[in-house]
Amino acid sequence: MRCVSVLGIGETKMGKLPDRTLRDLILDAGTKAIADAGIEKDRIQALYMGNFNSSHFCRQSHIGPLASEVLGLGNIPTMRTEGACASGSIAFRLGYTSIASGMYDVVLVGGVEKMTHRETEFITQGIATAADAEFEVNIGVTFPSVFAMMANRYFFEYGNVRDAMAMCAVQNHENALLNPDAQLRKRITIDDVKNGAPIADPLTVFDCSLVTDGSAFVVLAESGLAERLSRRRIVDVVGCGHAGDTMIIETKKSLTTVAATLRAAAEAYRMAGVKPSNIDLAEVHDCFTITQILNIEDLGFFEKGGGGAAVMEGKTARDGEKPINVSGGLKAKGHPIGATGISQIYEVVTQLRHDAGDRQIRKADIGLTHNLGGSAATCLVSIFRGR
Amino acid sequence: MRCVSVLGIGETKMGKLPDRTLRDLILDAGTKAIADAGIEKDRIQALYMGNFNSSHFCRQSHIGPLASEVLGLGNIPTMRTEGACASGSIAFRLGYTSIASGMYDVVLVGGVEKMTHRETEFITQGIATAADAEFEVNIGVTFPSVFAMMANRYFFEYGNVRDAMAMCAVQNHENALLNPDAQLRKRITIDDVKNGAPIADPLTVFDCSLVTDGSAFVVLAESGLAERLSRRRIVDVVGCGHAGDTMIIETKKSLTTVAATLRAAAEAYRMAGVKPSNIDLAEVHDCFTITQILNIEDLGFFEKGGGGAAVMEGKTARDGEKPINVSGGLKAKGHPIGATGISQIYEVVTQLRHDAGDRQIRKADIGLTHNLGGSAATCLVSIFRGR
Repeated sequence: MRCVSVLGIGETKMGKLPDRTLRDLILDAGTKAIADAGIEKDRIQALYMGNFNSSHFCRQSHIGPLASEVLGLGNIPTMRTEGACASGSIAFRLGYTSIASGMYDVVLVGGVEKMTHRETEFITQGIATAADAEFEVNIGVTFPSVFAMMANRYFFEYGNVRDAMAMCAVQNHENALLNPDAQLRKRITIDDVKNGAPIADPLTVFDCSLVTDGSAFVVLAESGLAERLSRRRIVDVVGCGHAGDTMIIETKKSLTTVAATLRAAAEAYRMAGVKPSNIDLAEVHDCFTITQILNIEDLGFFEKGGGGAAVMEGKTARDGEKPINVSGGLKAKGHPIGATGISQIYEVVTQLRHDAGDRQIRKADIGLTHNLGGSAATCLVSIFRGR
Repeated sequence: MRCVSVLGIGETKMGKLPDRTLRDLILDAGTKAIADAGIEKDRIQALYMGNFNSSHFCRQSHIGPLASEVLGLGNIPTMRTEGACASGSIAFRLGYTSIASGMYDVVLVGGVEKMTHRETEFITQGIATAADAEFEVNIGVTFPSVFAMMANRYFFEYGNVRDAMAMCAVQNHENALLNPDAQLRKRITIDDVKNGAPIADPLTVFDCSLVTDGSAFVVLAESGLAERLSRRRIVDVVGCGHAGDTMIIETKKSLTTVAATLRAAAEAYRMAGVKPSNIDLAEVHDCFTITQILNIEDLGFFEKGGGGAAVMEGKTARDGEKPINVSGGLKAKGHPIGATGISQIYEVVTQLRHDAGDRQIRKADIGLTHNLGGSAATCLVSIFRGR
């Protein structure tokens, strides 16, 4: 397998963007990534687009050729990938493997979602398609209820981490204050979270990630070529794991250990030849605050049952020993579903380039992204190393 | 790149299947393919699922883990691919390249669509998402109107082929009489087609492919492993091309030559080291009868402008020199959108194995599949060789 590097990155401002269409979002982020890579468009040999459900939100499928047309990429092969909230990371892994295998030398990977123009019930119906329509959604299951069950089960098995869940939200909001692309830029407190409007006990509205319009892109290249072309600090993709789990929450072996994360992380760590302790920063899938605690345990950063204490001790804060979601995460930067995995990569690459300005963390040599889909039925973990 | 072979195939009966859910269709076709391959499920290392728009038709996204759970495949990585009507072929190409590159040794590729339980207007809205929502669908463009424009332009450039278009439908119906999986099994005449209910001039209802529930799967393996495992005549994947074109019909350079077909076919022929004249049979994307004529020209079987005459002379009939759509095609076997590309492969592999029973064509050593998406904005061409 050949080595693959990130040559360019770009993302939109995340948020409720009533004046921007799907096309606008793609054009903005895609153009930025290609410009950042400093390459001519005709070097791009294929386009992989992550998108969750524009078919529902925008009545627009077939995002591959749409994006190719918008960006002027000609007759290259394109495709859309979908794996619920992990749609973008699936596109990334396909782009990565297409270069690693020698099939292509330069590819463009993007993600996009445009949701906020629809009403809340319509959005909820669209998101719920990532759960099982027949056995879950038809009986009223939505994602807050699934992750609330996971939180309650976690409390039963490991003790109550309500405050630590709230602290995840507090820290992510704190981080987003320094991210100009973030959707929410306001400071909150643990009490704000705990006293927020109830969604599914114990989750309040402050435990839930956002509904977001946004897009993010990366240009990938074979590392030798990247070295010749790049004007910036090169960031290598050193590991990329992908695993699944059963679709339905009822059939999971555990509600407090995410099997897909364990397996995807093991694959990524093995490829990269690194251990959890080597990771300087991570963007993890905080669709709900409880998920952030499960993730930092399942990724091996803290022992099982110890995630809550680590958060309360400040270990995951921006100046802690293991900074988590320095971008603000899905909670405060935003969760443009199909773009989320790519936006995570945008943040990690920005940090590894030491380009993160006010939110730059001090030691940033190896970074990790963790992206879940559905009821943790899809997981991708990627590891990046700056040179 | 390593050699890749088809180890197993399976498909459902195609049609209006009110008693079968999405889950049922996946279970049926997937189980058949795995049984046909004669392998244990735990040999399968990844699952690639083509699906166009179950999010709309069935309120079900995240088809990857759904299919994995239904088929009992454990924690393997899964994904859904979407490229409109070419969604299944994109999944196939990813599965193919994942083995060719050495990443996996055995993978499962499937496609599924369940549509007929919804009302016609709802189905039409779902299909229209494969065109451009903003610039086409919002002003009333649907696919019959797009392909009717292509037909009228073809008449202008090359002369009227109305009878030949009708003959494509007649031949495909004739072929479907011998296919037990086909949706429509009734003989029609040229006059039936020309006098059918008008849809978009010159297309009548008999010029249009069907609305279909169905699923199809293939098991792929590295060829050396396939030789050790297979109990059947081995069929090798010898070429697989993928190309795109602009999304919007207005921006195409030509309405009568499909640029994506030319490029995908060139890639597939080059990989396979064969010429159009070496192809013994082909399943081509007859979403509308005019498309079948464009395809057999763009694939190099007949010269540009000569496709209509070739059809009228019987050259594309089952006993002709270049049998086209011996399965019955999208017109009569059916068009289960996300499964269509895989079902085309099912037919070609069945013929190359000499397992096609009454519809077996005599010389069947090299076969080709051709699958379009949207307004010909996505195209995949694959070439198979029996041993």
